[in-house]
Amino acid sequence: MTNQEPEFSLHGADALRAAFRRHASGVAVITSVAKSGEPIGFTATSVTSLGSNPPLVSFNISRGASSYPHLVPGVDLAIHALTRENLELAKIMSGPKEARFESELHTWSHGVPIFLSAAAILIGRVRTRLEVEANAVVVVDVLRGSENPDTEPLIYFKRGYHTSGERLADNF
Amino acid sequence: MTNQEPEFSLHGADALRAAFRRHASGVAVITSVAKSGEPIGFTATSVTSLGSNPPLVSFNISRGASSYPHLVPGVDLAIHALTRENLELAKIMSGPKEARFESELHTWSHGVPIFLSAAAILIGRVRTRLEVEANAVVVVDVLRGSENPDTEPLIYFKRGYHTSGERLADNF
Repeated sequence: MTNQEPEFSLHGADALRAAFRRHASGVAVITSVAKSGEPIGFTATSVTSLGSNPPLVSFNISRGASSYPHLVPGVDLAIHALTRENLELAKIMSGPKEARFESELHTWSHGVPIFLSAAAILIGRVRTRLEVEANAVVVVDVLRGSENPDTEPLIYFKRGYHTSGERLADNF
Repeated sequence: MTNQEPEFSLHGADALRAAFRRHASGVAVITSVAKSGEPIGFTATSVTSLGSNPPLVSFNISRGASSYPHLVPGVDLAIHALTRENLELAKIMSGPKEARFESELHTWSHGVPIFLSAAAILIGRVRTRLEVEANAVVVVDVLRGSENPDTEPLIYFKRGYHTSGERLADNF
C-alpha cells in the first residue's frame, strides 16, 4: 500500500468524460421498426450482457433519442456486434437519421432490419426500461442469433474507432 | 437490399454467448468497502455511461456475487478503467476473493480502495439498482475522478484480454 494520495481533481461530468475517453467499448448497431413500418436504428457503445439464464442484454439510451419512443416493452429489435469491416456502417448509423437506411445495406428478418455483415446478430424483445434522469437502461430478452466466423471487433475510445491489437491472455 | 434470409440458428443463451464472444468491452475494476471495513472489489466488463447531465454510470452484476449485498444505494465505490499494463490486476480481481487485496497494490481515498495505475478512476455513489432475474443493473452517480496520461485500454473479447490496435477514424 502506498501513502500517495491521488488528487481526483476532476468533478462530475468532467470526470465522467475523462474516464470514457479512456475506457474502451465495443460498437453495436441496434435496429427496429416504427409503428409506421419505417426502419429505425442507431449506433450504440453501451450494449452489455445482463446474464445468460435467461439470456438478457442491456443498453443505455438518451430518452430524447428519436428511437426511444419506439423501444417500448414487447417491441422486437436486432442488436448487431460490429466488426472492423463495419466502420462505414457505424458512421452511417450515427449520422443523419434520414440517411441511415438509404444505403440499402440491410435486409429484413423477424420483422426488423438486419445488417448481415455484422460479427454477430441478436434478435431480441424489449422487456423493461429503467428511466434515470434524461436517460434509460433498456433490458432486452434474447430470442435468437447468428454469427460470422473470423471477425475482429470494432472498438471505440478516445472519441474514435479502432481495431483490436495483440491477444495478451486467455480467460477460459 | 438483399433477399438472402439469415439463418439465426442460435437460440437463447447460445446466441447471447456467441454475440459476446465477438463483441468487445473495456475492462474495469470496481472497488468498495464492506460494513466490516474489509475492501471488496471485482473485475467488470459492463461499465458504461448513462449520460453526463447529471453524470451517471451503470454496470451489470450477478445478484449472487459476493459484492452485491454491499452495493446498496448510498454506498461509495471506485470504478477503475484499466490499461493494457493492468492485465495482472484484471486477473487478480477476477480470481479468488480472498486474494484480491493481498497484493497491497491499492491505496485508499474517499473511503474506498484505489488502484492508482488505472487509466482513469471515478469515485461514485450507488443511486439505484434494477433487479432483473438473477442479475442487476447498478446505477452510480459520478462524484469525482482522475486520469493518467498516455494510456491504452485493456480490451476483452473471445474470452481473452487484448490490446487496442490501429485507429481507424476520429468521431469528433
